[in-house]
Amino acid sequence: MSQQAFVAAKSALDPENFALANCIRALTIDAVEASKSGHPGAPMGMADATTVLFRKHLKFDASQPDWPDRDRFVLSNGHASMLLYSLLHLTGYADMTLEQIRNFRQWGAITAGHPEYGHAKGVETTTGPLGQGIATAVGMALAERRLAAEFGTDLVDHHTYVFVGDGCLQEGIGQEAISLAGHLGLSKLIVLYDDNSITIDGPTSVSFSEDIPARFAACGWHVQSCDGHDGRAVDACLTAARAENARPSLIALKTVIGFGSPNKAGSYAVHGAPLGATEAEATKATLGWPHGPFEIPQDLRAAWQAAGARGQADRAAWEARLAAQTPDRRAEFTRRINGTLPAAYDAAVQAARDALFAAPKKAATRKASQMALEALAPALPEMIGGSADLTGSNLTRVPAVDLQYTRDVPGRYIGYGVREFAMAAAMNGLCLHGGFLPYGGTFMVFSDYCRNAIRLSALMGLGTVYVMTHDSIGLGEDGPTHQPIEHLASLRAIPNLMVFRPADTVETLEAWDIAIRSRSTPSLLALSRQDVPQLRLAAGAENLTARGAYVIRQFGTGRDVTLIATGTEVALAVTAAEALQARGLAVAVVSMPSWELFEAQPESYRAEVLGNAPRIAVEAAGKFGWTRYVASEQDVIGMPGFGASAPAERLYQEFGITAEAIIARALTLTGK
Amino acid sequence: MSQQAFVAAKSALDPENFALANCIRALTIDAVEASKSGHPGAPMGMADATTVLFRKHLKFDASQPDWPDRDRFVLSNGHASMLLYSLLHLTGYADMTLEQIRNFRQWGAITAGHPEYGHAKGVETTTGPLGQGIATAVGMALAERRLAAEFGTDLVDHHTYVFVGDGCLQEGIGQEAISLAGHLGLSKLIVLYDDNSITIDGPTSVSFSEDIPARFAACGWHVQSCDGHDGRAVDACLTAARAENARPSLIALKTVIGFGSPNKAGSYAVHGAPLGATEAEATKATLGWPHGPFEIPQDLRAAWQAAGARGQADRAAWEARLAAQTPDRRAEFTRRINGTLPAAYDAAVQAARDALFAAPKKAATRKASQMALEALAPALPEMIGGSADLTGSNLTRVPAVDLQYTRDVPGRYIGYGVREFAMAAAMNGLCLHGGFLPYGGTFMVFSDYCRNAIRLSALMGLGTVYVMTHDSIGLGEDGPTHQPIEHLASLRAIPNLMVFRPADTVETLEAWDIAIRSRSTPSLLALSRQDVPQLRLAAGAENLTARGAYVIRQFGTGRDVTLIATGTEVALAVTAAEALQARGLAVAVVSMPSWELFEAQPESYRAEVLGNAPRIAVEAAGKFGWTRYVASEQDVIGMPGFGASAPAERLYQEFGITAEAIIARALTLTGK
Repeated sequence: MSQQAFVAAKSALDPENFALANCIRALTIDAVEASKSGHPGAPMGMADATTVLFRKHLKFDASQPDWPDRDRFVLSNGHASMLLYSLLHLTGYADMTLEQIRNFRQWGAITAGHPEYGHAKGVETTTGPLGQGIATAVGMALAERRLAAEFGTDLVDHHTYVFVGDGCLQEGIGQEAISLAGHLGLSKLIVLYDDNSITIDGPTSVSFSEDIPARFAACGWHVQSCDGHDGRAVDACLTAARAENARPSLIALKTVIGFGSPNKAGSYAVHGAPLGATEAEATKATLGWPHGPFEIPQDLRAAWQAAGARGQADRAAWEARLAAQTPDRRAEFTRRINGTLPAAYDAAVQAARDALFAAPKKAATRKASQMALEALAPALPEMIGGSADLTGSNLTRVPAVDLQYTRDVPGRYIGYGVREFAMAAAMNGLCLHGGFLPYGGTFMVFSDYCRNAIRLSALMGLGTVYVMTHDSIGLGEDGPTHQPIEHLASLRAIPNLMVFRPADTVETLEAWDIAIRSRSTPSLLALSRQDVPQLRLAAGAENLTARGAYVIRQFGTGRDVTLIATGTEVALAVTAAEALQARGLAVAVVSMPSWELFEAQPESYRAEVLGNAPRIAVEAAGKFGWTRYVASEQDVIGMPGFGASAPAERLYQEFGITAEAIIARALTLTGK
Repeated sequence: MSQQAFVAAKSALDPENFALANCIRALTIDAVEASKSGHPGAPMGMADATTVLFRKHLKFDASQPDWPDRDRFVLSNGHASMLLYSLLHLTGYADMTLEQIRNFRQWGAITAGHPEYGHAKGVETTTGPLGQGIATAVGMALAERRLAAEFGTDLVDHHTYVFVGDGCLQEGIGQEAISLAGHLGLSKLIVLYDDNSITIDGPTSVSFSEDIPARFAACGWHVQSCDGHDGRAVDACLTAARAENARPSLIALKTVIGFGSPNKAGSYAVHGAPLGATEAEATKATLGWPHGPFEIPQDLRAAWQAAGARGQADRAAWEARLAAQTPDRRAEFTRRINGTLPAAYDAAVQAARDALFAAPKKAATRKASQMALEALAPALPEMIGGSADLTGSNLTRVPAVDLQYTRDVPGRYIGYGVREFAMAAAMNGLCLHGGFLPYGGTFMVFSDYCRNAIRLSALMGLGTVYVMTHDSIGLGEDGPTHQPIEHLASLRAIPNLMVFRPADTVETLEAWDIAIRSRSTPSLLALSRQDVPQLRLAAGAENLTARGAYVIRQFGTGRDVTLIATGTEVALAVTAAEALQARGLAVAVVSMPSWELFEAQPESYRAEVLGNAPRIAVEAAGKFGWTRYVASEQDVIGMPGFGASAPAERLYQEFGITAEAIIARALTLTGK
């Protein structure tokens, strides 16, 4: 069948929907042509289905994009960004002007190549790195169910809709998300799969031949399939999906990529490049679109704006329900959504602090983290925790965050399973939804598995908290596959991520306090398996960890040498410093729990802490990056390469991370 | 049923197999007790099935562990390492002495906490990071089929067996591997799933409720299930799996973790901790094992050693078949297995080099990479390429590596699909199998998705080659999700990984040459989307990239300032240097394509290249790490944070990575 005949046949199925969908296709074609780059194929293929969704099902009010009880819409295949921008423009989001559409992919425009959270209203999450959209949406659905259990369906009762392409389902994280959603029966999660049989390298058959509906069914999903260009069929599927109340729903939409393009439809040529002027014109002719570039006829625009206003009554009714709550409940709901801390929080921190100074504790910093959580979580109902199947190792479960999140009861503790990447992306979704402060644990070496989601936390400016235990060779016998070496450096290299490696119980509490207060920067806590003494013993009101680094011990007067250490190695540096003092050297020991926060200090403070004496860094990790603070990597007492399997003490000895090595280097540097 | 009764019932199913399996259980219990750490549960549960596999199906000869046509055995759930060590010891691998078993998880022993490739013979790959074992095994199966097509089933005809636990199947990479193997119909891949219903956090039901056989079936697998403690049932399943010739096989084994432990069997308590002396004794009693610690009765040892010698005839027959080949064919097969380069290779490099100097080319370095591949791949039949669905962007496909690897024809080009992590792990498997030099491409930002497999390449010392294109903001409009910032630093931080960022066609060719020659170090090529001029124009025989860094341009006499740049920014540095010379400054421009190789140079060479003048680094990436070579990050012309969506030229301007910025900094530093 020619594309002309194909389009004619499809347009007859639901003519009104087809005409409205053409607005999306036309804007997409024009914007991609104007920017001379972009991905027209997927928006053209998905236009019909999204038109149904936005016209008839999605609960939203374009005039109030942030209405808390709106349905969430996630475009997991983010390269189809023009689909979303077109929908936002057509339905009347104020910031998504035609000028923005014209400036697609240009400097300063809110219409970035991939949807960027925080740029345009209505972009619920940053997408583009494939598979993460659906996993983030799982987090949103987790949030919705939990918040509804806390505040009632009067205030919280919405769906999360996700569009995914083949790429999202080929990526492993996609399966992690599908498996977790199916396990927990997240029935308000509805995924629409753009089954267009095309991938960048050609037909999907070159690399992909699964029975996708069967895979979802195996994971406990409600599954439907239909013609993605048949508005009525899509409508029926969406209605059935919304009616399903035990399982998440998949709707597999058979579509044609680049729908309407006479020479490129159904081909990978239309995936990631402009159609070209001639083909663009031919496509518009095939679609029956006689209008000029960026031109939307008034009747169609009016119909779209009606869709954008469709939710106004719902929203007003919701506001009335919110107003009808008791003042306390209304205030608490608002607080949760706004992400402000409760009044009781400061006192909880102070009490925890006082307790540590009253009775100092020797403990692994992972244990110190658990103690901090025990002290702070009761004051913070928004905290929602979990672990990628390492609860007993990460020590992420505490009495206030203990009730398991199950299919039946949405508790505060999520068993993410051995799915680090989906966990991290779901935590992003919990943040984005609003109402929650998520944290999740795994072994630090497996930050590798979820690294790009940590990056997205940082890029989006979300306050997720990563609890990464077993942070060095100090974990011992599990060996080099489990021992982080390059991880501290590689995480410190990520912009807008705060990496903490606290030295003791006090710094761990302080790090948690900073992480909790940081609602637009993610935090990552690198925590030890092995015990360390409490080094901070003098009660002081200031959170010194917030300085990033500070002199934790001064031996003698003046400075012959400065030892900079982090985490478990601060105690080692103190031991070495004592020995150096005995040899007549004046030594300052600097604890540096956070490079990022130290860099944010005034230069005078930094100069004072670092001093002018020779400096040695001590950290049981790779040496990369430490030249920021020491003269050369020869002045770093750290790991020369990968670790090994043996008891921790032996490893420290064998790899030369010892007080003796620190002392020897100090004597060399000072010439004493 | 009591564990006593349960064990009695199971032991009656195949008494001989049960008795042999008890040797594994006993050694595991004793070794974990001795080391006071480890994972006894899985080996105890899987002992029966692995006993069947090693006694009746696995083609191996313990006296010749490296026999090329042996079956491969991968323990994907690597924490069950004592299972493997027990099997190697019992079947008579010479290096796996009882002393090694006694020293489980101790310094210097080959019995590391997780199986480490290169430590003990019979460990085909390092496992522990979950899910990667099965993906690596997919690479081995890919290798087997391709090598068989090249050299005939006389020389290459073996299976790859994989044991996986729940964790491997929860990890996303597991699904990527399953999907790819099913798509390509890798029928000689047989996966045994230890379905023990227990995960670290408790019963798998806390986080996992899939119908695993149905998921595999949806991905095109042959699926069977049986009682994992019934030796005869396992035997029958293995026989059927080996007979299947169109699909990979899954055998789901219903097992009890910690089988035999009266108080801990079937519980997560037995997953990752010693049984304890009392329970260990009770377990042995339950199993009917009256022998002392590390004691194996002679009759059982003899039966096991017979199993270890079972393949000797096969191996001898294979050697006879190898000997019967033509000398050329035998030599070529041996060369491939040994990983040495062919005689014609040097000439191919020289010809490619000559061509570049004869007709210099302006080209993106990704294009330069394609040119290098076009020139070198014809000389190297061992090269096997692919891309994670970005062939047209990575430019990884060339005439010699063009035939698609399909279900029917195992060509040299693998469409990995949008599965970066499985791609990287499969490349490890292709290396480990022997006979291949794999390379694979994706966008550099998605190195995040496969990072832990890159790490395993480095840890195992494998010569995989990662082709990472779109290496900076120079990719333009796709925006911050696609623009690497911290990636160069975070990859440079990985031990034993060579990261190359070549400046032009010549350096790209040189980097490829080094990567190809490096059979025990992985290489990662960071390549540009945008064009750069060829800067090296003077024909010289030396591969200067092998120096890591060198003075590529000298302006004036002496040095007022040194500009160190990499990749696309070398040309920018040259432009700035020209302008600085016009202002009377003597400037050396250093191209630094590889930090790792530069660090390996003699100190005198490094000092000469770096010079004593003030230094400025120029790289369109995060500044982290550059203080190794410059005084402070203020001397780095690089990215202050994440990128943005806009045309590349505009991004360079807006982020201040310009000749003007270099000039301004140079003038400040030199006071001119």
